This record gives sequence, structure tokens and C-alpha cells, in this order.
Amino acid sequence: MQLNKPEIKVDLALVHYPVSNKNQETIGSAVTNLDIHDIARAGKTFGVTNFYIVTPYQDQQNLVREILDHWLVGYGARYNPDRKEALASVRICDNLESLFDRVSGDGSQPVLLATCAKKQHNSWSYEEVRKRIFSGEHFLIIFGTGWGLTREALDMMDGMLPPICGVSGYNHLSVRSAASIVLDRLLSV
Amino acid sequence: MQLNKPEIKVDLALVHYPVSNKNQETIGSAVTNLDIHDIARAGKTFGVTNFYIVTPYQDQQNLVREILDHWLVGYGARYNPDRKEALASVRICDNLESLFDRVSGDGSQPVLLATCAKKQHNSWSYEEVRKRIFSGEHFLIIFGTGWGLTREALDMMDGMLPPICGVSGYNHLSVRSAASIVLDRLLSV
Repeated sequence: MQLNKPEIKVDLALVHYPVSNKNQETIGSAVTNLDIHDIARAGKTFGVTNFYIVTPYQDQQNLVREILDHWLVGYGARYNPDRKEALASVRICDNLESLFDRVSGDGSQPVLLATCAKKQHNSWSYEEVRKRIFSGEHFLIIFGTGWGLTREALDMMDGMLPPICGVSGYNHLSVRSAASIVLDRLLSV
Repeated sequence: MQLNKPEIKVDLALVHYPVSNKNQETIGSAVTNLDIHDIARAGKTFGVTNFYIVTPYQDQQNLVREILDHWLVGYGARYNPDRKEALASVRICDNLESLFDRVSGDGSQPVLLATCAKKQHNSWSYEEVRKRIFSGEHFLIIFGTGWGLTREALDMMDGMLPPICGVSGYNHLSVRSAASIVLDRLLSV
């Protein structure tokens, strides 16, 4: 069923550097295969345009290219065309600066929003962001891997999305779960 | 932050048999490590009591036990106690019949709800289920792996949750994403 698609423009990025480790040191994390699949599939479900994998490491970029090659032109493309459709949104990017350049490539400067498991001072409500997205504003939603984006990275954003809370106070969702929930909150119909 | 926990009682199950493959044949699927982690973490976030992995295959059950052993008593338990906390909710179950026996073991007969990517005739709204959960009713929410629960399995349920729709009409979320979104819709605060 193809719904009447509202004019939305949302891009996603999954950042592997600079992020924190559990000791709050700045590190580069390894790419996780299922992050690419799960977030691309959720992105496709909710009408995301581009999903950027951000890593400066050439071997990690090559790994992403191999995965994409399998599903976009190799055996995977014939075995599961639905997966091909989702993974066609994936782009590779060296760092945050080139990410910001590319998403504003067509002259539209997106609002930069990051997610964080801890409450930040510059939080925007999901309701407000949802309203602005459906009124046509361009957003880039940025997720960190590892223990999350570094302070310096967070300071480059226009705002933050509030942490996802349940009844328990436990806030250690996988980035795959967090991205899925964020997209559902902002873009479900 | 520990919130005042409402009296909710929700269990989850991830079923590996009987499920369909892409040709609608009944199969048993393999256990996926990240399903266990992601759904246990989301379950812990949203106050789920037990998360049952349903598979009749002894080698697959052993794999689950090895994973749990690493994170509950092995090195993983010291390296990441948060993960231990989430995985402590995982239980192993042979089949649907023993699942239904176990969840009603304390005399409370839970409502059996399954999810499906296709709209079913006996769908309950998320709003209604949420209301009933927060009024204290016991629910078991059941997810299928592969291409989803078989018709016979679906016919054992009291009802279905509606498919998760975005703007695109694409409905091929991973079970990890679907479970995260379902829990957020039913149990976020």
C-alpha cells in the first residue's frame, strides 16, 4: 500500500568517530553490520532520504562497501529485493564536517539534531520536531555509536532529542532500537 | 533516575518455530545474538518482566545459554553490568505450548498478543492495549522471526497488534526494530 507521501525531508547519520567509550575517552568505534541493515530498513519504512555511515577508517568504509555491494548488486539483491531497496539509501562519509557539507549540498541547510541517552540542556520535544518535519523543514538526525557522541560533537548540533525513557530508569538501548523509536515518534502516520 | 514504577506486568516472547520463510513454508529459524541483546535491553528499559526465547532446537538453546553465561556470570558481567541487568530477564522455552504454561505459572492468565507486518482482522489498537497494561492486566507480546509467525500460531492468540506504518508503505522492519517500537508505543512514560 503506497500512502500519500507528505513532503518530508529527513536524513540520518550514524557516527563512529568521534564517540566516547565507557571511560569517556574519545574513540573511533567499529562498524556493526546489523546497524546498517536495521537503521536503513527503519529509515526506508519512515521515509528517510539518505542514511550516512560516518567513519574516517578506510578499512571500515571498505567493509560497508562490501556489505552494500552484496545487497545492491550481488546475490543479496536477487535473494531479497526489499533489503536492496532499504540499503540503497546508505552513503559513506569521512567525518562530521564532510557530512554537514553533503547534507546541505542542494542548498537546503538542515537542522542538526542529535540524540543522547542523558538529558541535555538544549532538548527539543518530539512533538515540536515532528511538526516542523511535516511542515517541510529539512532535518538531519545524528546517532552516536559506542557510549555516544563526544561533547565537542554534541556542541556542533542545533539541538538534542530527549532521551527515551521507560518505567524502569534503565537507559541503555542499542542504537538500533533508539533509532527505530526516534523514527517512529517523529515520522509514523 | 528511578521513576515511580506503575504496576505493569508484560512478558515478551521471540519465536523461532513455527515461523514462515519467504515462500510461506513453515520453518525453524536460527537464533540471532543481537535479537537477544536488543530486545532484552529494550524490555529492561520499558519494564518487561520476562523475555522468552522460543526454540525447540537443543543446539540453539545451548547457544543462548552460552551467550547468557558470558554476560551473566562470565567476563561480560564484569565488563558491562548494565548488559547483565538486561539479559537477566531472558528465559529459554521449547515451544508455544510450554511458553503459555510458563507465563501463566503464577495463576495469572496473560492476554496473548502477536505482531504481524500485515494487517489482521483481530487487531487491537496500541492505545487500548496501553490502557489495559497500565490498569494492571497481564500481557504476553509475541514476535515471530523469519517472515513471521505461521497462520496456526497466529490463530492461538487473543489478538494482534497493528503493523507499524511509516509514510512509505515499506514494511520490512527487523524484529529488533519492531519490538523496540511496540514497547515504546505501549510502555513509554
